[in-house]
Amino acid sequence: MKLLSSGASPYARKVAVAAHEAGLIDRIEIVSVTVSPVSVNPEVSAANPLTKVPTLLLDDGAALFDSRVIVDYLDELSGGRLVPAGAARWPALRDQAAADGLMDAALLARYERALRPEALRWAEWDAGQIGKIERALDTFEAGFTPSARAPQIGDIALACALSYLDFRFADLGWRNGRSRLAAFAEAFNARPSMQATQPA
Amino acid sequence: MKLLSSGASPYARKVAVAAHEAGLIDRIEIVSVTVSPVSVNPEVSAANPLTKVPTLLLDDGAALFDSRVIVDYLDELSGGRLVPAGAARWPALRDQAAADGLMDAALLARYERALRPEALRWAEWDAGQIGKIERALDTFEAGFTPSARAPQIGDIALACALSYLDFRFADLGWRNGRSRLAAFAEAFNARPSMQATQPA
Repeated sequence: MKLLSSGASPYARKVAVAAHEAGLIDRIEIVSVTVSPVSVNPEVSAANPLTKVPTLLLDDGAALFDSRVIVDYLDELSGGRLVPAGAARWPALRDQAAADGLMDAALLARYERALRPEALRWAEWDAGQIGKIERALDTFEAGFTPSARAPQIGDIALACALSYLDFRFADLGWRNGRSRLAAFAEAFNARPSMQATQPA
Repeated sequence: MKLLSSGASPYARKVAVAAHEAGLIDRIEIVSVTVSPVSVNPEVSAANPLTKVPTLLLDDGAALFDSRVIVDYLDELSGGRLVPAGAARWPALRDQAAADGLMDAALLARYERALRPEALRWAEWDAGQIGKIERALDTFEAGFTPSARAPQIGDIALACALSYLDFRFADLGWRNGRSRLAAFAEAFNARPSMQATQPA
């Protein structure tokens, strides 16, 4: 399998970390590509009309996207090592969705601050996205419980979202008043899966 | 269960149509709310820090989001009526992801055109999102096969995405040169699940 990926994408990192944690990384060739919402990369578009990473190219030529679908596929390949079964399934999937939503808001704020011409930036849009990030962080601080045994998709998505804030929004000071989340990130970031997938 | 919903949201409609098709709509109370990326609705934020619809409130007080997670939950409640098993699972989930991505691009273009102050609009951003929509439509036209029996999540998501284009982007003329998709939409839009959930 080939994973179309970008070193700055938190969604692509989530898939790579999941592949490491599920013991599947040796079956995946990472292909580094560049994508942007205001240009078209023909190589990526040929596999995924949304022109986004991550996109997984299967050996039979089919493509799978987005990150959520790829994680689900890796979960099946690994015999269920990423998504818990039974009642634990729903909090784990909701945690992934909350972390993905945090990433969505952070990406939109990043595009507003770094991609859009300065004269066209809208402070209320930026503030709205940062508000989503702050509320998601507060909700995780109050209610998140890391998986007791091996990391699962909720842990992985949250760790990648927090690390993206360190990478692009260091000025946000997300650890302030969130000691539980800070401790989770410190422990999780030491894992080989996170060390092998640092943003670039 | 209560579904926090908005009459204009294609993601909320996807969940409502899925509930109809899975025979679960009678168990769900639809609660109409208003959300915007540049304001905070406290009722929605209390259940979902991302302040988005759809958000499903379970009878035990827990909240589930986003639309993908809710569909997965409804699939389980219905004994697997929404997401096919086996090899058919992956094209169905990819079709949902492509339709969701089409909706994402359409929402971002809608915000750019209707929400952002006119002086701050960026033509390249709008063109980039419309390009994603056009490529997704072309990919569906070339490769989409409707489910042979009852509609499944790929059909439902695509139908809701196409209907959202009719609702907000009629000027796009998405049916031009896409007769297979146009025929699919005409047939699917006649279903009671679609008739009961028209955008407003």
